[in-house]
Amino acid sequence: MSEPGGACVATSELDAGIRVERSAEDPTAFAAELGEGWQIGAGVNGGMLLAVVGNALRHACAADGHPDPLAISAYYLSASRPGPARVRTEVLRAGRTMSTAQASLVQEDPDGRPVERLRVLATYGDLDALPDDVRTSAMPPQMPPPEQCLGTDLAPPDFLERASLLERLDLRLDPSCVGWAVGQPSGRGLLQGWLRMADGREPDPLMLLLAVDALPPVTFDLGMLGWTPTLELSVHLRARPAPGWLAVTHRTRNFAGGLLEEDAEVWDSAGRLVAQSRQLARAPRPT
Amino acid sequence: MSEPGGACVATSELDAGIRVERSAEDPTAFAAELGEGWQIGAGVNGGMLLAVVGNALRHACAADGHPDPLAISAYYLSASRPGPARVRTEVLRAGRTMSTAQASLVQEDPDGRPVERLRVLATYGDLDALPDDVRTSAMPPQMPPPEQCLGTDLAPPDFLERASLLERLDLRLDPSCVGWAVGQPSGRGLLQGWLRMADGREPDPLMLLLAVDALPPVTFDLGMLGWTPTLELSVHLRARPAPGWLAVTHRTRNFAGGLLEEDAEVWDSAGRLVAQSRQLARAPRPT
Repeated sequence: MSEPGGACVATSELDAGIRVERSAEDPTAFAAELGEGWQIGAGVNGGMLLAVVGNALRHACAADGHPDPLAISAYYLSASRPGPARVRTEVLRAGRTMSTAQASLVQEDPDGRPVERLRVLATYGDLDALPDDVRTSAMPPQMPPPEQCLGTDLAPPDFLERASLLERLDLRLDPSCVGWAVGQPSGRGLLQGWLRMADGREPDPLMLLLAVDALPPVTFDLGMLGWTPTLELSVHLRARPAPGWLAVTHRTRNFAGGLLEEDAEVWDSAGRLVAQSRQLARAPRPT
Repeated sequence: MSEPGGACVATSELDAGIRVERSAEDPTAFAAELGEGWQIGAGVNGGMLLAVVGNALRHACAADGHPDPLAISAYYLSASRPGPARVRTEVLRAGRTMSTAQASLVQEDPDGRPVERLRVLATYGDLDALPDDVRTSAMPPQMPPPEQCLGTDLAPPDFLERASLLERLDLRLDPSCVGWAVGQPSGRGLLQGWLRMADGREPDPLMLLLAVDALPPVTFDLGMLGWTPTLELSVHLRARPAPGWLAVTHRTRNFAGGLLEEDAEVWDSAGRLVAQSRQLARAPRPT
């Protein structure tokens, strides 16, 4: 949009980051550009990659009236780098209320050979068409309001150095979950906080795919400050989120055999449990 | 095995049910026969289907030294019927410690046209090669011993009528979770019990894929005695189970919009949390 003074109001950072362009030759193929600003550790954030693929699948399934991911699972094959990427999609079945589809994100290695980054399965539908019964027994997290929570600048400097993702987010951590910042992790395996996009872009289903993987690793709360590469991430999207802050919890209960599960819940400002996810991740290497 | 008297000791029911035969022409393709004895409601049990596909993937990934599923996700496309099936597999990446692969199970409709039943993504590895650290904070379920628990014959007759799967299992439900049998569901969204194969076949990783989907729907405990078709099921296998009884819990916390998540945990007789799963299912239609 042009403004009177001639300045340009850019699209939101997230919408620019997940933008995909449909191929003119092949309507199942999409071009994407992975931005520099979404990195965490050695690669592009796994939730952001899922949002890019989820956006391509949204285009692929929208023709059947199924624009929203209801369930989506990603298996990560290699670390993604900022730069061009291609997403191939295939609708496996388009039913009356849901479509099931597959997608693959591919980049080129320095020699121009294609390297697959993640393979995705998903069921799409229309969140607005679901019945409006709610019998959720889960309770929203208890934590102080955002203005009494803590920014992510208290994370270890060598973590922040490779976490450009955090600059896109306004993330406020519950003070009861950040003992690790002063060498006193709680050991509960719990991180929680408030989340919104730094530029004010309101949440929608694709933003929730990023939200479930946006907090620091829950292993921080077990006293391990290294990286936890995701092997597999599955997300259920259960309602369209209301505008405003999201309350996000990350929890682990089974750290064993060099692997851990990480369960995330995302609650919207209306108190609705809008997304649930689980991932299997590699435990951090001892430092 | 032949016995002295000439009688044949058959292979176990589960091993017969998940048997796959590699195609001579195409080593990535497998033939299977879905048995009559594994049905629940309108089709073959979703966990059993996952075990069949998991067995084909085991063959596909074993050459790289990765015989065990570590994470596996199935998206269900149509209801499977007893009879022949084909499983196509594709290894997407074989790394040093893990392989990631895809599979698809297809049957023919009455006119001989192929119909896909489920599409699967998985990461395989070697459970015996994982480091032996265990820092699990989850606690095993509290329930009376198997001999003080209740068989599944207390389920509604029209449920049992279409549940041949239950004849393959020795399933003992915690009495505190079966109020639904006398019209008094607890409303907690919890079912738990002891599980082993009726013919004494000991648990292994493939049996765990069945175990996570073998209890009656957790919605029984919410007072809804209908079917809950699975849309998506993801399982993490975290250790090779010890012989003996498995303790299995099914739980739901977010019943909303005509859908629910169902989380399962499987604990082995050594007190180890050997599998965790989550599925997204359709809520039962009001009866």
